Amino acid sequence: MSGTRNAQGDNRPIRLGMVGGGRDAFIGAVHRIAARLDGHFELVAGAFSATAEKSLASGRDLGLPDDRIYGDFAQMARREARLGKGIEAVAIVTPNHMHYRPAREFLRRGIHVICDKPLTATLTDARKLVKLAERSEALFVLTHNYTGYPMVRQAHAMVEDGDLGSLRLVQVEYAQDWLSEKVEDTGLKQAGWRTDPERSGAGGSTGDIGTHAFNLAQFVTGLEVDELAADLHSFVEGRRLDDNAHVMLRFRGGARGTLWCSQVAPGSENGLKLRVYGDRGGLEWHQEEPNRLWFTPLGEPKRLITRNGAGAGAAAGRLSRVPAGHPEGYLEGFANIYAEAAAAIRARRAGTAPEAAVTFPTIRDGLAGMAFIDACVRSSKRNAAWTKLAL
Amino acid sequence: MSGTRNAQGDNRPIRLGMVGGGRDAFIGAVHRIAARLDGHFELVAGAFSATAEKSLASGRDLGLPDDRIYGDFAQMARREARLGKGIEAVAIVTPNHMHYRPAREFLRRGIHVICDKPLTATLTDARKLVKLAERSEALFVLTHNYTGYPMVRQAHAMVEDGDLGSLRLVQVEYAQDWLSEKVEDTGLKQAGWRTDPERSGAGGSTGDIGTHAFNLAQFVTGLEVDELAADLHSFVEGRRLDDNAHVMLRFRGGARGTLWCSQVAPGSENGLKLRVYGDRGGLEWHQEEPNRLWFTPLGEPKRLITRNGAGAGAAAGRLSRVPAGHPEGYLEGFANIYAEAAAAIRARRAGTAPEAAVTFPTIRDGLAGMAFIDACVRSSKRNAAWTKLAL
Amino acid sequence: MSGTRNAQGDNRPIRLGMVGGGRDAFIGAVHRIAARLDGHFELVAGAFSATAEKSLASGRDLGLPDDRIYGDFAQMARREARLGKGIEAVAIVTPNHMHYRPAREFLRRGIHVICDKPLTATLTDARKLVKLAERSEALFVLTHNYTGYPMVRQAHAMVEDGDLGSLRLVQVEYAQDWLSEKVEDTGLKQAGWRTDPERSGAGGSTGDIGTHAFNLAQFVTGLEVDELAADLHSFVEGRRLDDNAHVMLRFRGGARGTLWCSQVAPGSENGLKLRVYGDRGGLEWHQEEPNRLWFTPLGEPKRLITRNGAGAGAAAGRLSRVPAGHPEGYLEGFANIYAEAAAAIRARRAGTAPEAAVTFPTIRDGLAGMAFIDACVRSSKRNAAWTKLAL
Amino acid sequence: MSGTRNAQGDNRPIRLGMVGGGRDAFIGAVHRIAARLDGHFELVAGAFSATAEKSLASGRDLGLPDDRIYGDFAQMARREARLGKGIEAVAIVTPNHMHYRPAREFLRRGIHVICDKPLTATLTDARKLVKLAERSEALFVLTHNYTGYPMVRQAHAMVEDGDLGSLRLVQVEYAQDWLSEKVEDTGLKQAGWRTDPERSGAGGSTGDIGTHAFNLAQFVTGLEVDELAADLHSFVEGRRLDDNAHVMLRFRGGARGTLWCSQVAPGSENGLKLRVYGDRGGLEWHQEEPNRLWFTPLGEPKRLITRNGAGAGAAAGRLSRVPAGHPEGYLEGFANIYAEAAAAIRARRAGTAPEAAVTFPTIRDGLAGMAFIDACVRSSKRNAAWTKLAL
Repeated sequence: MSGTRNAQGDNRPIRLGMVGGGRDAFIGAVHRIAARLDGHFELVAGAFSATAEKSLASGRDLGLPDDRIYGDFAQMARREARLGKGIEAVAIVTPNHMHYRPAREFLRRGIHVICDKPLTATLTDARKLVKLAERSEALFVLTHNYTGYPMVRQAHAMVEDGDLGSLRLVQVEYAQDWLSEKVEDTGLKQAGWRTDPERSGAGGSTGDIGTHAFNLAQFVTGLEVDELAADLHSFVEGRRLDDNAHVMLRFRGGARGTLWCSQVAPGSENGLKLRVYGDRGGLEWHQEEPNRLWFTPLGEPKRLITRNGAGAGAAAGRLSRVPAGHPEGYLEGFANIYAEAAAAIRARRAGTAPEAAVTFPTIRDGLAGMAFIDACVRSSKRNAAWTKLAL
Repeated sequence: MSGTRNAQGDNRPIRLGMVGGGRDAFIGAVHRIAARLDGHFELVAGAFSATAEKSLASGRDLGLPDDRIYGDFAQMARREARLGKGIEAVAIVTPNHMHYRPAREFLRRGIHVICDKPLTATLTDARKLVKLAERSEALFVLTHNYTGYPMVRQAHAMVEDGDLGSLRLVQVEYAQDWLSEKVEDTGLKQAGWRTDPERSGAGGSTGDIGTHAFNLAQFVTGLEVDELAADLHSFVEGRRLDDNAHVMLRFRGGARGTLWCSQVAPGSENGLKLRVYGDRGGLEWHQEEPNRLWFTPLGEPKRLITRNGAGAGAAAGRLSRVPAGHPEGYLEGFANIYAEAAAAIRARRAGTAPEAAVTFPTIRDGLAGMAFIDACVRSSKRNAAWTKLAL
Repeated sequence: MSGTRNAQGDNRPIRLGMVGGGRDAFIGAVHRIAARLDGHFELVAGAFSATAEKSLASGRDLGLPDDRIYGDFAQMARREARLGKGIEAVAIVTPNHMHYRPAREFLRRGIHVICDKPLTATLTDARKLVKLAERSEALFVLTHNYTGYPMVRQAHAMVEDGDLGSLRLVQVEYAQDWLSEKVEDTGLKQAGWRTDPERSGAGGSTGDIGTHAFNLAQFVTGLEVDELAADLHSFVEGRRLDDNAHVMLRFRGGARGTLWCSQVAPGSENGLKLRVYGDRGGLEWHQEEPNRLWFTPLGEPKRLITRNGAGAGAAAGRLSRVPAGHPEGYLEGFANIYAEAAAAIRARRAGTAPEAAVTFPTIRDGLAGMAFIDACVRSSKRNAAWTKLAL
Repeated sequence: MSGTRNAQGDNRPIRLGMVGGGRDAFIGAVHRIAARLDGHFELVAGAFSATAEKSLASGRDLGLPDDRIYGDFAQMARREARLGKGIEAVAIVTPNHMHYRPAREFLRRGIHVICDKPLTATLTDARKLVKLAERSEALFVLTHNYTGYPMVRQAHAMVEDGDLGSLRLVQVEYAQDWLSEKVEDTGLKQAGWRTDPERSGAGGSTGDIGTHAFNLAQFVTGLEVDELAADLHSFVEGRRLDDNAHVMLRFRGGARGTLWCSQVAPGSENGLKLRVYGDRGGLEWHQEEPNRLWFTPLGEPKRLITRNGAGAGAAAGRLSRVPAGHPEGYLEGFANIYAEAAAAIRARRAGTAPEAAVTFPTIRDGLAGMAFIDACVRSSKRNAAWTKLAL
């Protein structure tokens, strides 16, 4: 992950388009940095807003020529597909309800899709998209970016290597505080769509951050949630979607756990934390200190493994750019997903297999996330009855 | 809490007896230090073991004269009650199933009881003991010792003062790892009775540490759990009681929360942690760093309040012995319960009201704890159905 | 620092060349990411190695056309200066002794220089370069990258705003462990030149990391070291330059402090830590947890200020890309220096003043760093006698 | 350290007297708790104040009979020595200038002395006291209490066992903030004598806390400081003794280090921290989190060793009372010194050798501390010239 491109193969940057991500959008800017950080992608086109003028202004801010700035994702898909040097991949960074249709248009035309999470606004759309994606020659990459952190990969590798023994417990949480008050009424755009079932889907905190926690837990442990019991609640009066969820988990194979996500926990910024315990050891990782991983083998002193430091293995090293003690953060983790997408795209360009197995999150992870939201909502409506994930 | 005794009143040490706590017992030694630390109590008698020789040997270790060492708590209760300078209070530090009967004998004779938790082995016994205690002139003090930590008192005071606003969320957990393997089969005495339903009651980790977590949550918040949904499990094959519990909580008044207790989480020593969130702020406290309390008012920088440091109020200061930065720990917190018990006992001696309201845990807290275990077990049997506490 | 370019002005990327930074070099890759991260620069040319073939291979790795890959910095300076679209700025990322001559060549031709630290290998060269730079129309930017961390800017602003009162104490340290053994003998390139006085100059750890600590202390406090007493030592037998330094500091105006730098402290990765105390409060910052800043006003609870969180001001916010709780790290801090350089270069392009005062480290900081090394070496030779900085 | 007394031998509590420690004194109360905590001592007499009425009132607070409360240490020494059951040991807890004379009186009479640090107010007195003590049959115990922490013993054992290899570096500091303002003018008794050369001696922060840091460094490493260069300063205007000291250290055998002590560092409570580095590993310990010890073997993951947890050895376990994860603190560490003193005193009673080598701090440690203060003051007067310790 040195920032150098593959010297053997075709190392030209991949031509990238973007849907959404106009001025004031948060996640669009993140995707652009992630795409650019290692030099694997070059942003060449975009439909940055549903309003043509806003899209134009945003695209100009980004230095794009006017003829590659679109007011409409469908128009962009059609035209870029016909250009000799049209986009090879598209990043979809719109609110949830606007993932499905753009993804469909680009996949149909063989343009690789890099899509923000959750996959769609409804489980029905998710299922349709899975079918489309699996019939398409194009790749579908879901930016569950937290799995891109090197020490998350380290954790995954340690579990896989049996360092924890047989897994018993998974405790995962994602706590924030930015929705502690009814900020959706103040015009805050980020809060507006996230608390609106029309745009966000059936899950509030569950969809926005619970899916990240769920994905992280499944990624690190390699386990699948079989059933869950969820107590969803909106603490802020008048809020239309859950802003807090307590979820008990039962995994296939017998492990159990809990998932807590909240957007009303004052003092919490992006408190995504994972703890996994097996019969031989435990692991603990916090997103806010991502370069550190605690490993606690039963009956031995606690060990703190640092990114690129002693004890960190190849899975983490491969995604590291700087030495131990020089922190890498959220953007680097996000860029790792883009870098893995780039490697896969280049392998397709070259007609070769990628060097390693696919590690970035795929549409199947997206479907699992939608099934998680769906199960949470159904369980909570039945007073937290145990509910199977409908995969 | 200066270690000086009340100068105004009768400052002779209170004569204390002990039931249980012989050689090799852990908690008996803790009670003795807690009783002695501030000079409020003097151990003068004991029935340290059900085996007379062991009791004698243990009592001699402690420097007691042979005629104050008993082989039987009933004999001790009878004789001490008749002595001119017999014990004024007794510490009961036996396994759970041996709390009820000794407590009954001493309460009947007007001897104050300081009893380890949980209150009894069964909810039925607990209810009977409540009646006995409330008819007795003697005090009943339950050593939910974690409420004796100064910063737990600080947290309680801050919630009461409204610093967090209206409470919404309570996350509490108590994780250990010492039962990760089947150590009850190795002859480890501590593990033996804790995993034996005959001696421990219906709860395993639930009773041993879950009750502490439950008590701490209720103490700090002043809220009462109305109903819970519990998923209890024994991960270690052949274990007869739960070694892990996931519990969702609904409090009267609308707050919600989760409680996790585990004795199979490698790397966890005594990981009792409490987080409370209201609409205006949050609090976080860890038993392993007990001199620190995080206060996170919404929209302001996080604040770290230290025992006896700036921002710590009278409730904490009253229970502190040394300046900020000089850590006080588990024994001091335990001793604070004894010190408060001593103040109440002295007030009874003097026929006066105690200076402040009762703050030590009482038999009512013990009953609540038993109702918690009972509800957990019932809920878990019904596949984690919501279950009211039977108070 | 949104990753969007200045919409008002000329937002084309700045054409960047590089001297050094070939395959296997660490800091060259860092500079390239930092330059690219916000899209302000585009690498278009380079003399990546003194060996022509290596330079060519490295440049091709980076996707550069062969005619922009040079075997020699002088040739690159001459040719690029004549090209219509030649480089506008050059990053010099060679070992210390190879800073002065390239810098001179580019400055002479009006090409902006972004140079790694320390400024040069000798104080004499540094003084000459200052004269050259101050006569040149081109900018000189020194990548003391740690000053690019948002919370370092926050600390600087708080000191300037008087939040600490009158400064008394500055404790700064930078500890590593990678030279604990004689790795320079194993062929490790990074260690080879850093322990070689011919290439590194008179300072070992003093020059490599001590200058960072020194620069950070002066930047945050706004104070200047007047004199110092230094005890330099090489613990590893046969090492030619210091691998550890203890330095006592006296600042103009009366503040005092210590600086410790070490490359032989096992367990230390990049342990750069700064603590500043005034008569009204203190600050503490660690490079390994860069998104956090402790502020300890005298007599008030400790406060933890987080990047983009409550209590963080404009100086930090201006250099932040993602919300609080999503960590930014070393590369982002480094990129902030590049972004500020870009703003200054664009202002020169446009013939306007930059929006804000220069905040990136300049050649004057570089001279101060060289004076620091020089004073340390002179003091240590005189058995740690107090020695004035020869500025 | 179970709180049980030695069952084989004479397990009656040792009769203890106290000089100083009247109402409002801080350290006297600490000594009393430490003496009482494990039941090894019983306070039976005292000269608590130079004012007879104050002494009487203080003694009565403590429940002593009037005939064992003295207005004068000399009278106490004379009378107690003649009593059949007079004191066997005395705790001297007065300001520094009042250590020498009482110690002399009790030593002369064969009464064991447990004395607070620093040893005396002057190096001359210290030397005289060493002679007296070494001629006396009574023990002399100096309460450098921080060496009583179990994890400090663990650190000592690990150094001794060679876990760090050959020692190179020792970084020690003790920072407080309580003298940041001129509180000695406000009537604060603790500040009054500590800033008064007549009562405190030549060292301010150097004597009060620097000696602790010095002692801790020497204890853990087993190394002796050969020479030092000290920059002492009083930041608070009009203060008569140093409130901050920067000291560079050179140990016999080649290790080097720094010592920083300060009482004007806002936000610092009792920030005593030690870091030791050898060629094979490092150690780090903080007094404010005393149950944890970081061990960082070169090239291996960092390890966190906890008191009574995995990896902690016999030296720590012997001084622990409760399981890992139940914090022990300042008072327990202090009590460990008292417990070791008790073991030695009982061995003398029994005419047997103590079970283990003497581990509590002795008068030789006190002399070293006085030599440290003396060298600091002399060095600082000569502008931080290197100065040998005059042992």
